[in-house]
Amino acid sequence: MTAEIVSVGTEILLGQITDSNAQLLGTVLPEYGISHMHRQTVGDNLPRLVEALQLALSRSDIVFTIGGLGPTEDDLTRDGVAAALGISLVQDDELAERLRKLFAFRNLPWLDSQLRQAMRPEGSQTLDNPNGTAVGLHVEKDGKHIFLLPGPRGEFGPMVQGPVREALQKLAGDEVILSRILKVCGIGESVVENLIKAHLASSNPSVAPYAKLGEVHLRITAKAPNTEIAQSLLEPLEAAIRAELGDAVFGVNEETLESSIIDLLTARGETVSVAESITGGGLGARLTSVVGAGSPFVGGVIAYQVSVKRDLLGVTAIDDPVSARCANQMAEGARKKFGTTYAVALTGNAGPTSDVGGKPVGLVYVAVARDGGTTVEEYNYRSTRADIRRRAEQAGLNLLRNEILR
Amino acid sequence: MTAEIVSVGTEILLGQITDSNAQLLGTVLPEYGISHMHRQTVGDNLPRLVEALQLALSRSDIVFTIGGLGPTEDDLTRDGVAAALGISLVQDDELAERLRKLFAFRNLPWLDSQLRQAMRPEGSQTLDNPNGTAVGLHVEKDGKHIFLLPGPRGEFGPMVQGPVREALQKLAGDEVILSRILKVCGIGESVVENLIKAHLASSNPSVAPYAKLGEVHLRITAKAPNTEIAQSLLEPLEAAIRAELGDAVFGVNEETLESSIIDLLTARGETVSVAESITGGGLGARLTSVVGAGSPFVGGVIAYQVSVKRDLLGVTAIDDPVSARCANQMAEGARKKFGTTYAVALTGNAGPTSDVGGKPVGLVYVAVARDGGTTVEEYNYRSTRADIRRRAEQAGLNLLRNEILR
Repeated sequence: MTAEIVSVGTEILLGQITDSNAQLLGTVLPEYGISHMHRQTVGDNLPRLVEALQLALSRSDIVFTIGGLGPTEDDLTRDGVAAALGISLVQDDELAERLRKLFAFRNLPWLDSQLRQAMRPEGSQTLDNPNGTAVGLHVEKDGKHIFLLPGPRGEFGPMVQGPVREALQKLAGDEVILSRILKVCGIGESVVENLIKAHLASSNPSVAPYAKLGEVHLRITAKAPNTEIAQSLLEPLEAAIRAELGDAVFGVNEETLESSIIDLLTARGETVSVAESITGGGLGARLTSVVGAGSPFVGGVIAYQVSVKRDLLGVTAIDDPVSARCANQMAEGARKKFGTTYAVALTGNAGPTSDVGGKPVGLVYVAVARDGGTTVEEYNYRSTRADIRRRAEQAGLNLLRNEILR
Repeated sequence: MTAEIVSVGTEILLGQITDSNAQLLGTVLPEYGISHMHRQTVGDNLPRLVEALQLALSRSDIVFTIGGLGPTEDDLTRDGVAAALGISLVQDDELAERLRKLFAFRNLPWLDSQLRQAMRPEGSQTLDNPNGTAVGLHVEKDGKHIFLLPGPRGEFGPMVQGPVREALQKLAGDEVILSRILKVCGIGESVVENLIKAHLASSNPSVAPYAKLGEVHLRITAKAPNTEIAQSLLEPLEAAIRAELGDAVFGVNEETLESSIIDLLTARGETVSVAESITGGGLGARLTSVVGAGSPFVGGVIAYQVSVKRDLLGVTAIDDPVSARCANQMAEGARKKFGTTYAVALTGNAGPTSDVGGKPVGLVYVAVARDGGTTVEEYNYRSTRADIRRRAEQAGLNLLRNEILR
């Protein structure tokens, strides 16, 4: 079964809001074995909306509209759906009555234009919206299904998780699509692809890599008549990929590099501290974003100016702050100060100019101190200031993880 | 002139990433008088991509593709554009050479599959991408323009602001839409709307408020035959709004709260340090994200565990770490340690459980120490862990700014 989302709203096209509703719905559809192959976005314009709906109906079994169900003249989705399907709109007296009561209850002035929200395509069923005035609607015609859903996020989310999931469960029938994301760090996308080349041609289960900043994510997907069979297709492929990539796989699905590290440290009863120059606190912020960071993460020094490197961390290489020696001393200074199992240090030049001791933009040193020695790595990134800082954090997390697993 | 965006990527349809690139481009197009009436999203599938491009070319003057320019087999945008236009792909030897050099510079293993990124539609022009391996491309055929832009956000953003804007300026013709965003902090959206009520009905120039986390943005827009006239429409409205809102306006367009603070401190020859518990380094990371932070920002302590608050900052209120007293002592301890004009401290409970000394989730204390005293504020946020931490940073920046301007 195929589905298509039509997001309605000039404010989306103008970039005034993020279309997080379509994103949310996109994550839900595969769970019901529904293939989501197209998404369209149109403004508040009736002819263009009708055209988009006709195109969607011509190629997809299920069409979701998001937005355009409010009471104003800009809210055209009901009219668009009726026109695209060639059916008429009727007033739902029960809805009209409910709206009047709601307005009275909230002490809001009643305008007859509100009755637009009581109109619905003939033969449609309503989907309850406990958080707003516009109900959702479900129309079936000639084997095609259209769901009309309201745009405000606080209404859309609960409707998807409630009545939409219920309806999809009924439509889904006998195909399930299961998907897992394996997350990889420390090796680049082309190397990963090369290592798992043998599996890339497989179609069910399938594997698709995509590169994230400093990570590669592998989405493995299986289609089957039920969850059990889908699972039995996924598992051998996951095992084969893990056998190729080993420890480079740091997590699954919602896990992050930082959460995998906090979990590792917690399980081992170990602790970590940070000494940050180039990242200014970003590494600490990422580690402490994880629930449960309070036991393994002790603290850190944001050693931005050289005086702080010297006074708080005992660095002597202060005339050369972008250097392996400085990173080494920062990590060892932090480990001593905080008494932690590991300490991670980051120093470098994030740009945009080469004013840090004449060192080039993008040069980064990462160090991890531990019992028995300190490891330092050098990186050269060619990117924006924000990206270089983010990549430095990523390199710090990656080296820390390697040292924990060593 | 009309434009259409075609976002390419199965990960967008599956909801694994937000299509913030399309949103960004959507905000830019109106400035050049370009109407943006359709957006399509398709997966990494050649026939569907070609179909989407043909539809876009049939109804829009300018088509932007986003994504699918990488080196893997899933990256199909070049092939899709060539097929949709009926032209062939040629290898660009200069690009191939540049790629080889870049890989050597970064010490990355070279694979011949990388050469996919050196292919381009015949007759196309390259758009420089200083932050990635895939250049952008611009093809013109039969009066239609296609721009192929890379998907990674750190590459896409700078390309839009640079070469894409330049190209649009040339295509734009004789209507100019000028827009400025005034950024406000410290007062809520409804209060802002009430203060500027008199201007909300104006249509050219117009003003539209948007609430952001801890900020309100006011977009003022003017249409005119040329930039000069548009400017002369904008300026009086901006002045009138500034007169109502005073110091609450902290910046314009790309300026951020943190950049406005770094600018203020630099202009005054003053310095700042931070002491962070709840935010774990996030405040330092935001202040040091600003180019030029190196003079005013000295350093900080990430005082996550109470032992760090006590040992590095001299806090005595260690049995009550989520308290006004602790925030006060953290700020004063940091100011003393770093010898800065101001020190900002943040402590609180970000949740998800009330395990921090029994204090409720969302309780946050912000303190700023300065010559002549320390100001502490208490906030109660009802939100997720990530949001509470972000709001705490925002409160810290806002209080710091108020103390600087006092």
